[in-house]
Amino acid sequence: MTERKSEWLSRVASKYRVVLVEPTYQINIGYVARCMKNFGFRDLVLVKPRVHMLSEAAIFSAHARDLLLKYCWVVDDLEEALTGIDLVVGTTGKIPRGYDPLRAYLTPREFAEKARDYNGNIALLFGREDIGLKNTELEVCDLVVHVPANPKYPILNLSHAVAIILYEIFIGERSKYGKGVDGRKIPRRSEMKILLQYFSEILEKTGYPASRRRRAELTFRRVIARSMISKEELYAFMGFFRKILVRVRQVDEA
Amino acid sequence: MTERKSEWLSRVASKYRVVLVEPTYQINIGYVARCMKNFGFRDLVLVKPRVHMLSEAAIFSAHARDLLLKYCWVVDDLEEALTGIDLVVGTTGKIPRGYDPLRAYLTPREFAEKARDYNGNIALLFGREDIGLKNTELEVCDLVVHVPANPKYPILNLSHAVAIILYEIFIGERSKYGKGVDGRKIPRRSEMKILLQYFSEILEKTGYPASRRRRAELTFRRVIARSMISKEELYAFMGFFRKILVRVRQVDEA
Repeated sequence: MTERKSEWLSRVASKYRVVLVEPTYQINIGYVARCMKNFGFRDLVLVKPRVHMLSEAAIFSAHARDLLLKYCWVVDDLEEALTGIDLVVGTTGKIPRGYDPLRAYLTPREFAEKARDYNGNIALLFGREDIGLKNTELEVCDLVVHVPANPKYPILNLSHAVAIILYEIFIGERSKYGKGVDGRKIPRRSEMKILLQYFSEILEKTGYPASRRRRAELTFRRVIARSMISKEELYAFMGFFRKILVRVRQVDEA
Repeated sequence: MTERKSEWLSRVASKYRVVLVEPTYQINIGYVARCMKNFGFRDLVLVKPRVHMLSEAAIFSAHARDLLLKYCWVVDDLEEALTGIDLVVGTTGKIPRGYDPLRAYLTPREFAEKARDYNGNIALLFGREDIGLKNTELEVCDLVVHVPANPKYPILNLSHAVAIILYEIFIGERSKYGKGVDGRKIPRRSEMKILLQYFSEILEKTGYPASRRRRAELTFRRVIARSMISKEELYAFMGFFRKILVRVRQVDEA
């Protein structure tokens, strides 16, 4: 189980590369590194960074400092950053009103769903803090991703755009391993049925009017189902209910 | 159209409140304000902030400075921050291995799906940069949200956790207005059929072997469908194809 877990995560680490084109602020580089580690990413390339040291970046990267030291490299041009890459994905905060093929985009979620089933290596390009990626750079990209936002202020800070896109990729890749959106255990239908039977018996034994029982059962069932109850929570409920049952059965027998 | 757009966004602005409990760094407060405006949020409450000025926060908030000036208020205790709130939602970066009802959580996406259909006012609580929310604060919460992340380093920076959760809420609320995950126009089935007919006729007129035509049509259809083509893109394709058709028909007639 743990092995399979680390397997898909190391797949994320080797499949994706984050490329920052001419980043200006160390704080952003640091935060990007932290977000990368938070979501299992590893390789970071800086294309002509406008900073010459990464000491401040290291502070903001927190526990992702090792990523900056070991897996971050600096190159002089974009092509160099794309060595060994099969699919180049650009990002943009600006989208045109009308249709423009250069910026025809996928949302992070749409992209993550496709990327999950893609077997090649993917570079994720993020542009400068002020003007983003240039058109000539977007032309190099196979796909463009745009984070939907408030039309009144759609431009996210660089590291926050990175966070959202890496988060979506993480969720997408993780879902491939049959764990749903996260790793919680989901109760089986048979387990849920036991809980519902307990509830029914409690209704019966507590003298709940027979004519309204069906409706009550359904209400309970709907609420529990909507709560997306986990296996552990279900077992906890069973525990409560068994206690109640033991008690009401005693009363019943007396 | 524009009116409906601003309507749902102003609903987001009045429905949710972001509460930061004892934040320490101005940069985080600034970035949180920016993320809030990026996703249409407005009201920010700081509970006992450990900073006494917001000048640096204002810089990092960029074009969300107005939010800090007009819609951010400071209170002395959590209860005061929850005035007028119907549902209190905590956040945690730490989740226990076993089941712990205090931290039984929803993912941001699960929460966003529920929140979308909820008509009351919601407070989103985010804890301190170092230790998060205390257990006594989590006990005040009706729900807890946790951002799934790399088990090796699951703790996100405060503002990035805020970004991801607000992004999910934004996407959820927006989807309620029938626009899918974003605002692009989706082509109708009838429009798609016209494009496929164009393609078929092109195959026919260009002398593509009849025996392999069905397979080719299907391939085209699958690729186009997987691309999640927009209405504008579809019309662009129709334009290309009409041009081709006019030409091949001429050749055909000659």
